Amino acid sequence: MMRKVYLDHAATTPLLPEVREAMMPFLGEVFGNPSCLHEWGDLPRAAIEEAREQVAGLVGGRLEEIIFTGSGSESNNLAVKGLALAQQSKGKHIVVSAIEHFSVLHSAQTLEKWGFEVSQVPVDRYGVVDPEDVRKALRKDTVLVSIMHANSEVGTIEPVREIARITREHNVLFHTDAVAVAGTIPINVAELGVDALSLAGNQFYGPKGVGALWLRKGTRIMPLIDGGIQEGGRRAGTENVPAIVGLGKAAELAAASMSSRIEHLTGLRDRLLAELPAKIDHVVVTGHPGNRLPGHTSFCVEFIEGEAMLMLLNSQGIAVSSGSACTSRALKASHVLIAMGLSHEIAQGSLLLSFGSGNSMEDVDYVLEVLPPVISRLRQMSPLYAKFTKASKGVK
Amino acid sequence: MMRKVYLDHAATTPLLPEVREAMMPFLGEVFGNPSCLHEWGDLPRAAIEEAREQVAGLVGGRLEEIIFTGSGSESNNLAVKGLALAQQSKGKHIVVSAIEHFSVLHSAQTLEKWGFEVSQVPVDRYGVVDPEDVRKALRKDTVLVSIMHANSEVGTIEPVREIARITREHNVLFHTDAVAVAGTIPINVAELGVDALSLAGNQFYGPKGVGALWLRKGTRIMPLIDGGIQEGGRRAGTENVPAIVGLGKAAELAAASMSSRIEHLTGLRDRLLAELPAKIDHVVVTGHPGNRLPGHTSFCVEFIEGEAMLMLLNSQGIAVSSGSACTSRALKASHVLIAMGLSHEIAQGSLLLSFGSGNSMEDVDYVLEVLPPVISRLRQMSPLYAKFTKASKGVK
Repeated sequence: MMRKVYLDHAATTPLLPEVREAMMPFLGEVFGNPSCLHEWGDLPRAAIEEAREQVAGLVGGRLEEIIFTGSGSESNNLAVKGLALAQQSKGKHIVVSAIEHFSVLHSAQTLEKWGFEVSQVPVDRYGVVDPEDVRKALRKDTVLVSIMHANSEVGTIEPVREIARITREHNVLFHTDAVAVAGTIPINVAELGVDALSLAGNQFYGPKGVGALWLRKGTRIMPLIDGGIQEGGRRAGTENVPAIVGLGKAAELAAASMSSRIEHLTGLRDRLLAELPAKIDHVVVTGHPGNRLPGHTSFCVEFIEGEAMLMLLNSQGIAVSSGSACTSRALKASHVLIAMGLSHEIAQGSLLLSFGSGNSMEDVDYVLEVLPPVISRLRQMSPLYAKFTKASKGVK
Repeated sequence: MMRKVYLDHAATTPLLPEVREAMMPFLGEVFGNPSCLHEWGDLPRAAIEEAREQVAGLVGGRLEEIIFTGSGSESNNLAVKGLALAQQSKGKHIVVSAIEHFSVLHSAQTLEKWGFEVSQVPVDRYGVVDPEDVRKALRKDTVLVSIMHANSEVGTIEPVREIARITREHNVLFHTDAVAVAGTIPINVAELGVDALSLAGNQFYGPKGVGALWLRKGTRIMPLIDGGIQEGGRRAGTENVPAIVGLGKAAELAAASMSSRIEHLTGLRDRLLAELPAKIDHVVVTGHPGNRLPGHTSFCVEFIEGEAMLMLLNSQGIAVSSGSACTSRALKASHVLIAMGLSHEIAQGSLLLSFGSGNSMEDVDYVLEVLPPVISRLRQMSPLYAKFTKASKGVK
């Protein structure tokens, strides 16, 4: 049987068996609606509050500051639209970075339809936002800054704390999309100084269909989903009890094993990044060389297309991404790589290998064995590469 | 051990074992993100499309007309806000009934903040909307009518088909909240003539955390959740694969066993409603006497509070609701009962017993045995009842 190597943890992670076990009672006997006053509601309600405590613990927040949602994208929509709309009497200007996830960028576009203005701050070639650019973008009518904690396509970690210092000076709310970060590296909302932070369960071995928004106590927000008084009136709808319980358990496990996970992932990533350049020429590593997510490897291979590599690697049992998971089916050059100054041509050859707890050094060996011939094969078919080698020979 | 009788299926239903079995692979090995191009995405993607087919089958729609959401409330929000906002250039007036679920009523309120006007059509004492009232409420600038298929508090089924005939004549979109109906009684969107229809998995033995909006092909809608291109760009966020698969399976099972379920539920309901008046005096049955959901029994007991009955029944192992599940913790008199013309006093004594597949005639026996002494006991403590009996004696 072919070796199967899943290296797409940035797209989604498998569910940990302990998480599944924690969820099972709520897919069985304990099925009540948490809003019910009779005893069928008691266990589900208590389980949700325990999960809230666990998620709050993961980010250093308080129980009552956690709003459960249906996904990281929903958390981002709730934060960007909800915070901006709740403050529109103060002003209608928001600031985002050029490399935000589409759930932030497209929420900002929706706000534009409602009369808001949106400023995009640039990033440098490593994908880093300069906090001074945020300062420059702030106006008298700025009500919200939304800049991600780390970018899931290139792994770069942003200077959130420094940006928060500036937003606090100017009394502007600051939301950070920490979907790629929460559960992976330590987060403490008090130290970061942010006002809202998004996370998603399926990024750290929890279930799909559940996310959370940590929202600083006392911060007004306009709900996306109106209706009942669930989540303190900030997100209506019968709670997804099993998924919330799973998210809580995943948060607890992530907090407990974070340092060992980081060490493991960093080892895998660093070895791949160290050995890759010797095996493949014309590779551009993307993202910040040092300040990046532990299990995250991203690079562009010149003269060929990321999708083609992805497909050939898939035929060898290896799962990787090209661009972000959510946009991969759109087959466009990544807006993140373009914002970092890469040409469309090079950006087309992007590849993202994201490790997880289940990966081993043997997986790295396998990638280092399989990837170079895949690339050679594709380059032999590439008109761009033929042109390049011809030109190089001419130079000689 | 005390007998346990769950009679709150209107709040949520247990998961069928077959539904759980269908979900299990997607909580285990088959964990990929459906948006991924590699093979880990293949099975989840195919499973979602199968579920889409199953849900479309339940309501007589087409595969591509199903948008998966995170709850019935989200479906209602998406329909009411999304359809109104997508058409605001045509007009900014919408029509709802006075007894809609809060996810519709509060969505309408949010639209008012955005400059829309909302007309509420009344209901009669049975909770029925008169289609002619809808016609009268229509204006030149009306862009949407949202009237529920059946009310989950009183069980009354609305004349959706007749209302649709009027909205179509006037070229106005018609959304119906069928959360209490879908999976319980047959639905065919073509016969109904509606343009959008909401449903939720946990109402028919499917999972929590998932709902769907059927939206007639070609109807423009503004998404609630912006971001990736999931659900045809109409609802961003990584799909909740296990829950969607569960919803699909539940839809398939509901369609296959609908007539036997209806027969079973109707038998339980009719016996309870027939025997209740002989056992308890001063009971007002609420909702339509004939045209109501099969397993649905609702009534108001005069001189006492619904919550107190609920609590005492709970202590005897019986789960019931007073008012709707989502608002039960708000402890207000139901807006539905008030709209039906009941006094606040009588509405406070509301009780809702909703049967499910797992209930038996023995459960009805148990309720008929337990409920009368519970009511007697509470009435003995009720100052209102003391006043009433004194007055009655005075009349003699």
